[in-house]
Amino acid sequence: MTASWEKTRASLDQLFAPKSLAMIGATNKLNKWGGMILANVLTNRFKGKVFPVNPTSPEVLGQRAYRSVTDIPEEVDLAVVVTPAVTVAELIEDCGRKGIRTVLVVTSDFSETGPEGREREEEIKRIAHRHGIHLIGPNSMGVFSSSVSLVCIMAMMEPLKGEISFVSQSGNIGVQMLAWGKRLKTGFRHFISSGNEADVTTQDYLRYFGEDRHCRSVMVYLESIKGRADFLEVAREVARKKPVVVFKGGKTASGLRAAASHSGALAGKRGMYDASFRQAGLIQVATTEAFIDCARSLARLPLPKGDRVGIITRGGGWGVITTDACEEHGLVVPQLAPHTIEALDRLLPPYWSRGNPIDLVAIPNIHIYLDCTEILMKDPNIDGVIALGAFTERATSFMRRPGFQEATGIDQATVQAWEEQEGQAKESVLYGILGLMKDLKKPIVTVMGREPTPRFDTLLRKEGLSLYPTPERAVRVMARLMEYARYRRRWENK
Amino acid sequence: MTASWEKTRASLDQLFAPKSLAMIGATNKLNKWGGMILANVLTNRFKGKVFPVNPTSPEVLGQRAYRSVTDIPEEVDLAVVVTPAVTVAELIEDCGRKGIRTVLVVTSDFSETGPEGREREEEIKRIAHRHGIHLIGPNSMGVFSSSVSLVCIMAMMEPLKGEISFVSQSGNIGVQMLAWGKRLKTGFRHFISSGNEADVTTQDYLRYFGEDRHCRSVMVYLESIKGRADFLEVAREVARKKPVVVFKGGKTASGLRAAASHSGALAGKRGMYDASFRQAGLIQVATTEAFIDCARSLARLPLPKGDRVGIITRGGGWGVITTDACEEHGLVVPQLAPHTIEALDRLLPPYWSRGNPIDLVAIPNIHIYLDCTEILMKDPNIDGVIALGAFTERATSFMRRPGFQEATGIDQATVQAWEEQEGQAKESVLYGILGLMKDLKKPIVTVMGREPTPRFDTLLRKEGLSLYPTPERAVRVMARLMEYARYRRRWENK
Repeated sequence: MTASWEKTRASLDQLFAPKSLAMIGATNKLNKWGGMILANVLTNRFKGKVFPVNPTSPEVLGQRAYRSVTDIPEEVDLAVVVTPAVTVAELIEDCGRKGIRTVLVVTSDFSETGPEGREREEEIKRIAHRHGIHLIGPNSMGVFSSSVSLVCIMAMMEPLKGEISFVSQSGNIGVQMLAWGKRLKTGFRHFISSGNEADVTTQDYLRYFGEDRHCRSVMVYLESIKGRADFLEVAREVARKKPVVVFKGGKTASGLRAAASHSGALAGKRGMYDASFRQAGLIQVATTEAFIDCARSLARLPLPKGDRVGIITRGGGWGVITTDACEEHGLVVPQLAPHTIEALDRLLPPYWSRGNPIDLVAIPNIHIYLDCTEILMKDPNIDGVIALGAFTERATSFMRRPGFQEATGIDQATVQAWEEQEGQAKESVLYGILGLMKDLKKPIVTVMGREPTPRFDTLLRKEGLSLYPTPERAVRVMARLMEYARYRRRWENK
Repeated sequence: MTASWEKTRASLDQLFAPKSLAMIGATNKLNKWGGMILANVLTNRFKGKVFPVNPTSPEVLGQRAYRSVTDIPEEVDLAVVVTPAVTVAELIEDCGRKGIRTVLVVTSDFSETGPEGREREEEIKRIAHRHGIHLIGPNSMGVFSSSVSLVCIMAMMEPLKGEISFVSQSGNIGVQMLAWGKRLKTGFRHFISSGNEADVTTQDYLRYFGEDRHCRSVMVYLESIKGRADFLEVAREVARKKPVVVFKGGKTASGLRAAASHSGALAGKRGMYDASFRQAGLIQVATTEAFIDCARSLARLPLPKGDRVGIITRGGGWGVITTDACEEHGLVVPQLAPHTIEALDRLLPPYWSRGNPIDLVAIPNIHIYLDCTEILMKDPNIDGVIALGAFTERATSFMRRPGFQEATGIDQATVQAWEEQEGQAKESVLYGILGLMKDLKKPIVTVMGREPTPRFDTLLRKEGLSLYPTPERAVRVMARLMEYARYRRRWENK
């Protein structure tokens, strides 16, 4: 533990859990970032104090405003700067004079726009260092922290609170992932858009997330690494404790957006990343969808002891393509142990498929589904289970169509009773699956093609079940989990 | 044109557009297939006549029922059989006596369950042939046809009507795709679960879809091919006219669901499929998501003249990963022509990226977005465009939170006015994009991370825009479209 890291960590404490925040460039105008971000902070009920800084307005969005940070009568943990690039240097001087140690610069037009911007960035870096300030950004889209309800980002939203911590070298990708998180019922603990990383770098945030016991998985969107060996060392350390899911942008054109053609050098670079990331135990994903899927599922699922997958399904075709997907990901779909087949013989009709996948087609009984899943989970040849069609649903919305009652004589009260029965059935499967995972310490990833009802959706979110709409997404999550588990086993056996 | 095909086609006309349907095994009990399917047919208001057949009930679900098909006083185009396997042979005899030429057998427990079932299947095949009956199935999950509103399937639903025709060797996968179609606002013209294909095979349906001018793209879920050369010949013929998207199940274990390990023979088989499918111009997809994405987009988008993609985005990171995805799919993201850059220089601020992707970050003006898209579309180096962030939305649901009004002083009327403005802006981008595609005959695939509002969603569905929630899905669609266009060009240049 270096003294330098202790200071950085203290500064990151101020970034992610500030007791007070100065918004330099705050304004009443919502079409300006200084107005929009402040409105975001206030509407999301940040738990600390907020001090708007504006040289002319005595009040901004109903809050007492100050001409300069130096006029603020209390201590300030975090200053956020949103004023034009040419003004930033002087404002950081002010922060230094005020004794602020952590400054987040949202303002852009620094090194990302060319030589002049690069000079401005060097200047603010020098000033920050002189004052012992840790600089976040510049060109950052902001920060989110669940513990203090801080939504200090350039997009009006209320991210879900949860267990994923996320550092992104692209603000837009970061914000979009927070939004997808809401759709996937997946919450974040921390998010930081690291911007140009003039001072604090991706590996600093990564190390911080590694030490944070409330963070259960880490997402990293990377375009370029400042200090490759350092990054890999930190990453390796963190990956021993929790899953680190990495999405590398600029794989084919090495961060040069416009470059179109492959070159040997670039391809080499890509291979280099892939291999060193793998050695460091990082989970590298290839799509934005896999990025968040893996982060959310790996945070929750028990680590499997091997790569052998059991599949339970309610349709032959689905079993076939799930098996294909497992094998394509390098997983094994093994034969079932003889006593597993015997146990299933006692539950299933004589024509059942007698193999893995177990196909329960046309057996709607939910207790049989759970019983078969338990038998499969107990098979010593099986390290994890993909459960398709666990949550069946009658087409009650269809049954509510007027023609249905005319054609069938089934009234709305009956339909509602079925709906309630099914709600209960789904809950009992949900808790059955969670119980099996807890007892047997093997992961189960579930698949449900339909949109869950709002009520069941709420329950899924609360319980954090790994549920995906397609088998391919479920298999991908299982594959990356098994890959991560291999890394952890290798490490623990050393 | 063989006489045999003319008969098959006539039978498929009766399957997909029957004027009358006999449901053999109809019952009032909704927990039996004969009740459930009939309720489905009636509730979905099938446009033809329905004759329930039941040996004991004079009325089924409010319809006059008949003891046998031979008692029905009118002509019957299509008979659907749902009674137990051992009864089917005799009932098909009845159909023959009645002069019915098309019989769909939903009943299972035929060749798929072993030697006894195989014998039963041979028997019903013999009887059908003797009477000149075309047999659909057995072990079929049913048929959907938009033209006569026929939903004769084992799942209560109302599929969306549209332009895709779909033959599936897995009923469950078929039904799930119809359900996903609803979520994706994608409609089907025909769907048939081909079952065991004792008589009518996948290539018969495929040929029929090829001849149907209302069908704009074809989906085929395949596990095994009966008559490989024949299938490929038909497929090649259809693929010259319209896109045929194929998903092959049992790729890694050759239809043997339980088989777990790869073998040289299986791998060879897979390579063989891949190559012959490609030569026949089939679009082979690897996931269920790609299956429906490609079918819906390829039905509508203009065929590009080459493989060069222009990207327009509102965020650098998104441009980077979209470029990566293009290159990973073998597409080219070329430099822009000099006059394109000059034209964009006149519209964009001096710091714009001057390359492909065109990054409009922080320029919210929608007219500039459309103008830039038009300039990009007119670039002679560009064959198709991926448009990210075309449909921006203010976070109006966020603005409706109580804290927002307190913090900002912005009232609900203002928020509503913004919402309406934006609704109009999105519509003008939507029609602008459709207009550009029509005028310039190049495809545009759009990306929007947020869920569309219900109103905009309705419009998207009506206009059939290719819109995806992730750039990777958009790029995959573009890649398969460009692959298909290559096939068509090769063919047209012969």
